[in-house]
Amino acid sequence: MAKTKKAPRPKAETPKGFRDYFGVEVSERAEMLRKIAGVYHRYGFDALETSAVETVEALGKFLPDVDRPNEGVFAWQEFDEDDKGDWMALRYDLTAPLARVYAQYRNDLPTPYRRYAMGPVWRNEKPGPGRYRQFYQCDADTVGTASMAADAEICAMLADTLEELGIPRGDYLIRVNNRKVLNGVLNVIAPERPNESGETTRETIRRVWDISTRDAVLRTIDKFDKVGEAGVRELLTTGRKDSSGAFIEGVGLNKQQAERVVRFLVARGSTNADTLKNLQEAVGDSADGEEGVYELQQIAELLAAQGYGPDRIVIDPSVVRGLGYYTGPVYEAELTFEIFDEKGRKRQFGSVAGGGRYDDLVKRFTGQAVPATGVSIGVDRLLAALREKGRIGGAVEGPVVVTVMDRDRMADYQTMVAELRSAGIRAEVYLGNPKNFGNQMKYADRRGSPVAVIAGSDEFDAGKVQIKDLVLGAQIAENATLEEWKERPSQFEVPRDHLVAKVREILDGQESGQG
Amino acid sequence: MAKTKKAPRPKAETPKGFRDYFGVEVSERAEMLRKIAGVYHRYGFDALETSAVETVEALGKFLPDVDRPNEGVFAWQEFDEDDKGDWMALRYDLTAPLARVYAQYRNDLPTPYRRYAMGPVWRNEKPGPGRYRQFYQCDADTVGTASMAADAEICAMLADTLEELGIPRGDYLIRVNNRKVLNGVLNVIAPERPNESGETTRETIRRVWDISTRDAVLRTIDKFDKVGEAGVRELLTTGRKDSSGAFIEGVGLNKQQAERVVRFLVARGSTNADTLKNLQEAVGDSADGEEGVYELQQIAELLAAQGYGPDRIVIDPSVVRGLGYYTGPVYEAELTFEIFDEKGRKRQFGSVAGGGRYDDLVKRFTGQAVPATGVSIGVDRLLAALREKGRIGGAVEGPVVVTVMDRDRMADYQTMVAELRSAGIRAEVYLGNPKNFGNQMKYADRRGSPVAVIAGSDEFDAGKVQIKDLVLGAQIAENATLEEWKERPSQFEVPRDHLVAKVREILDGQESGQG
Repeated sequence: MAKTKKAPRPKAETPKGFRDYFGVEVSERAEMLRKIAGVYHRYGFDALETSAVETVEALGKFLPDVDRPNEGVFAWQEFDEDDKGDWMALRYDLTAPLARVYAQYRNDLPTPYRRYAMGPVWRNEKPGPGRYRQFYQCDADTVGTASMAADAEICAMLADTLEELGIPRGDYLIRVNNRKVLNGVLNVIAPERPNESGETTRETIRRVWDISTRDAVLRTIDKFDKVGEAGVRELLTTGRKDSSGAFIEGVGLNKQQAERVVRFLVARGSTNADTLKNLQEAVGDSADGEEGVYELQQIAELLAAQGYGPDRIVIDPSVVRGLGYYTGPVYEAELTFEIFDEKGRKRQFGSVAGGGRYDDLVKRFTGQAVPATGVSIGVDRLLAALREKGRIGGAVEGPVVVTVMDRDRMADYQTMVAELRSAGIRAEVYLGNPKNFGNQMKYADRRGSPVAVIAGSDEFDAGKVQIKDLVLGAQIAENATLEEWKERPSQFEVPRDHLVAKVREILDGQESGQG
Repeated sequence: MAKTKKAPRPKAETPKGFRDYFGVEVSERAEMLRKIAGVYHRYGFDALETSAVETVEALGKFLPDVDRPNEGVFAWQEFDEDDKGDWMALRYDLTAPLARVYAQYRNDLPTPYRRYAMGPVWRNEKPGPGRYRQFYQCDADTVGTASMAADAEICAMLADTLEELGIPRGDYLIRVNNRKVLNGVLNVIAPERPNESGETTRETIRRVWDISTRDAVLRTIDKFDKVGEAGVRELLTTGRKDSSGAFIEGVGLNKQQAERVVRFLVARGSTNADTLKNLQEAVGDSADGEEGVYELQQIAELLAAQGYGPDRIVIDPSVVRGLGYYTGPVYEAELTFEIFDEKGRKRQFGSVAGGGRYDDLVKRFTGQAVPATGVSIGVDRLLAALREKGRIGGAVEGPVVVTVMDRDRMADYQTMVAELRSAGIRAEVYLGNPKNFGNQMKYADRRGSPVAVIAGSDEFDAGKVQIKDLVLGAQIAENATLEEWKERPSQFEVPRDHLVAKVREILDGQESGQG
């Protein structure tokens, strides 16, 4: 017979930059999101789920002015007869769809509109270690109010959320800053310029930054976390050698200007009142700056009234992440307990959520500025933190495996698992080839089973069943002396109708043993 | 000043064929999926979450042998220097990714592998009313065992799932059929052909269908639900006039052949044993058919042993959906209670889940046939059913709204909501412009609020608070006489420290009032 040419087999591979999640990775995340949704709901936030797909036009940023507008996003052109269909894309965050939805339904939505959204987003970026092209976001935003009560509320909600997830008070801190305060500081130290008539009297002088310098100052401030006070001082003025020995040019501020910026960054006092006083001084007579300080004061007062003291939520001008992006208050939640990094060094766990106020949410669509404030939780980082603290991942997850000694007794084995499940115990019958009993025990091991149930014709005749504690069995196999092995048997023969009670007893013992 | 030409504003529109889900639409689905996952987990099924994106190669069916392989799927070409990147696509179901994962990780996964998956899938199809291009699927499959215990287990799990979701016993029925039985019926009625030597004795005769006739028979059987017994009989033989008067040509079987097929379809007896006896007769001496009947018998026995009688799971040869696709047992869950359709006619709610056994899951990747069986729940139909039965959607969902009479008292209002939330009550402060009190009540109405809290300077001075029952208020406004209105006030003044207790009392009353 002539050989027919076969097409090569497709490769079974996760696409590059994506990953698969198995078992508890999935269920623990689902449980975390459920708890977060519960807190958000209690705060009056409503769920919103938009589709993964948006028109590129609605997403913005990535407009089809080039042949293929898929830089950064996954995009494709819809098919129509002239090949001129709309460009579509996978959402790259949850804020762009919120903007579209708010513009679209604004007459039907309550004002203000509190909404939360959770789900995957997609980025068409070069994948790297730990960086994936699909990941979860979990956002809450309040749209349509300029009230600082909205910002305070989100900070309080964030604190409640972390505690609900099992992060105890003292192990987290929410820090609040305000872009307007920074603006105020920049206003008062901006270079003096003559007014339009060329006058330079006290009344007519203008303080104006050229844009590139201002941006350079913002970029430098953003490095505060990394280079610290002295580093920022150098970078704002004459420049700095970095750890590799390379020289980074400075922004060129004079010493007084740089000092003022640094004083803003380190303005945190021992109380919120002290901090606010320091900030008041830092912004001098800038109207912008005064407004910013007043906003922070309102937030601090609202939170204090609800019992959120500075041990949980604190005014801290050293929060710089996002100061360049947001327009008012900025907030960040960090976990303060120490972990060991991959090199074995102690360090704080760091940021797990951040957000702030932004005012141009729907302007692209409607021309109208709509104030909004919101937060995004880093789902995967927070999951890692909860695992680190042993708050999740400790429970026995594998099912009780009922082994098959006699294929003709399958109905009896099914009856056993049905009883176990009715009692809320995760259980399954071994459904592979039962010939080799060793394979069944290997299977139970691979499944992480806590207990195996064994019954052959001897047991059925005697109305009994064998129950094997696999966790204890593994411990004994590893450590025990012969005497211990005799004293603490890991296998028990019980009457058939004691099956559920004995399995429950063993499971309870395993859990308390892990506690 | 010269007018600068502005780019037109983007349209704020949900992309065609997609939809947005708000509030309870999202949370009710999440809660339903959580309950389903709980049952699946108890049965030993492990969660699997793959990314939305797969290579077109791995998805199969839609290979890049044409310029743009996005017929039916959303696909795009990855960008590389030569413009020859891989074709990627959004998954169109959850089975194709399972095949990829099983082939990829088969050495690390337990055998058999029980897995569940839930999430959106995407179809690039012409959207229609109620048909969307993104929708949820919720699948459970057992891969790597040919045992009928796997099929029986999935049927039992399906029954447990429906009951867990609040569909009472008697309101659903899981019907089981088997493709092999149909094969057996077709074998015994196939046209007689001479053997290769041209002999036609009893021993050498072969019964063989030409493929097109066989397919036509399968397609006709698939219409059984619609056209009924008499209709199928006509369509299998000489043809039939449909309701519009058009003549549909028949398949051309003779009367005896057609009768045998119909007898298979209506073989359900008053007990499973009767049904199996009827089927045994229908398949005659076909080995395929006998195997199919034996498989159904095993399933029935396993289920009976676990207490799943034919009131919940029944052998029913009239299940025809999917018979063309699956290779062994086929099962379907339907809801048997009656609803009124859009034309006001009574009809049964119908199918909410279906599945069966298929054997070519990973063969594309590995060349090896791997037996598998699985079920898919129609998430949106099941949600609709639960709403229909009043099992979800009845609870008060809107938040208690604390109105703002005095903007300077914001901290006090925040304290009130904090107390309510601590007691587990959904609550929020009105954060819009508080000037117009009417707007605040309109807002509460739009939010579906059950209760409004009102406190101005009079109340603060007296240490009191006003609490308004908005549900009762609305009822009274609609129906009550003046006397009733006086007897059943909907607004109460209580001491400030009774706030939580009084709100709780009103909420409890509203819930019991709703039944």
